Amino acid sequence: MSSVCLSMEGGAAASTPAALPYYVAFSQLLGLTLVAMTGAWLGLYRGGIAWESDLQFNAHPLCMVIGLVFLQGDALLVYRVFRNEAKRTTKVLHGLLHVFALVIALVGLVAVFDYHRKKGYTDLYSLHSWCGILVFVLYLVQWLAGFSFFLFPGAPFSLRSRYRPQHIFFGATIFLLSVGTALLGLKEALLFSLGDKYSAFEPEGVLANVLGLLLACFGGAVLYILTRADWKRPSQAEEQALSMDFKTLTEGDSPGSQ
Amino acid sequence: MSSVCLSMEGGAAASTPAALPYYVAFSQLLGLTLVAMTGAWLGLYRGGIAWESDLQFNAHPLCMVIGLVFLQGDALLVYRVFRNEAKRTTKVLHGLLHVFALVIALVGLVAVFDYHRKKGYTDLYSLHSWCGILVFVLYLVQWLAGFSFFLFPGAPFSLRSRYRPQHIFFGATIFLLSVGTALLGLKEALLFSLGDKYSAFEPEGVLANVLGLLLACFGGAVLYILTRADWKRPSQAEEQALSMDFKTLTEGDSPGSQ
Repeated sequence: MSSVCLSMEGGAAASTPAALPYYVAFSQLLGLTLVAMTGAWLGLYRGGIAWESDLQFNAHPLCMVIGLVFLQGDALLVYRVFRNEAKRTTKVLHGLLHVFALVIALVGLVAVFDYHRKKGYTDLYSLHSWCGILVFVLYLVQWLAGFSFFLFPGAPFSLRSRYRPQHIFFGATIFLLSVGTALLGLKEALLFSLGDKYSAFEPEGVLANVLGLLLACFGGAVLYILTRADWKRPSQAEEQALSMDFKTLTEGDSPGSQ
Repeated sequence: MSSVCLSMEGGAAASTPAALPYYVAFSQLLGLTLVAMTGAWLGLYRGGIAWESDLQFNAHPLCMVIGLVFLQGDALLVYRVFRNEAKRTTKVLHGLLHVFALVIALVGLVAVFDYHRKKGYTDLYSLHSWCGILVFVLYLVQWLAGFSFFLFPGAPFSLRSRYRPQHIFFGATIFLLSVGTALLGLKEALLFSLGDKYSAFEPEGVLANVLGLLLACFGGAVLYILTRADWKRPSQAEEQALSMDFKTLTEGDSPGSQ
């Protein structure tokens, strides 16, 4: 669909598919609205955020939405957006966004465990917390495996090309599970505090429901951009040349298979 | 990866990838355990199911898990499992499984609205119900569009091949949203009835959390089987011959592109 032209440096610079920037812009609009609306919900109805008080809990949803939903989603889109940069640059950006996401999510986790400890609440009894721990452990393992295989020098190319599809599948799955876990957490927060007022269409309930739909829509938008076959990042001449040296690579990863 | 041999009738019968049957068997084990465990949860802790009493509500989770999770998931897998049947047979099976899923889901919807009406409860205020209505409407639209484009004779081949990737994307997305909505519903049912007992690790809470993880795992297993590139259904000779007649089809749907 998109034409391929050779650049001066000998790398193949593919033109960007016409509709891709609009879809990416839309996903970013959804993502930023999501973060803003999470902030608005916590500010308007939950008293805002502070570390050294009961408001410490509120750092949890905000950090998780910024880290494990918005930044994680954007890290997945890096390979679609930066199509013509060197693969290594894109990789480093992908890894860095995931580091930011991981650190912010860690702050969010500390916030909720610290809050529970101070209040004497039980930890890890709910479905939200079980899914959350599962997501966080998977995310950490995926990050370490991704770093070892793709960024740390030395992993053989044949191993990289075998692990690559698994990395992509688990990356998308962990992202979707993060969105699902956020929905469960939102629901929990609403049922704990709103009680009967939820069924009376209180403004907080309606706002939080819209926030939930936005979460699902952001997940859907990222998934759509990721899975459009003709939007995949084309192989570049440098990688193609490299892959010629490794017979094992040519089968599943040939330039023509994109 | 998988070798292709011409059968006696002249159709191309591709061999089944070696690992596929194990993954499908595993997904079915997960799916059946999921349905059995939903039944066990409702039977052991919620008094079972009956239409003409307060137990009418319990028909809702069971019908939704059977229809919009298990049967919908299996309908998506039909094209991976029946690789060597005629495309039309597989299509009809895909459509029929979705009809069963739709009818069972409709019974589940009637159960909860009827229960709410009898009890005087408010309808459609929660995030679970908003997501649920969204899923059901999308599912209905997807079914009608799928029927009109692919089963009803007369849709031009060029239109079919343009709509096909959208149908696949929205099919997977609606399925995942169904799983997410089921998780929200489960969480709602637990928080409504267990209250403080949830944090005391009551058996019902633990069982329902395991049920929630099973739901997520079934979603993940179906997604994995669907997205493995080398497990996609190969084009068959009859379709290949047909596609020769329609130049518009050959670009994105050629036999070699699988």
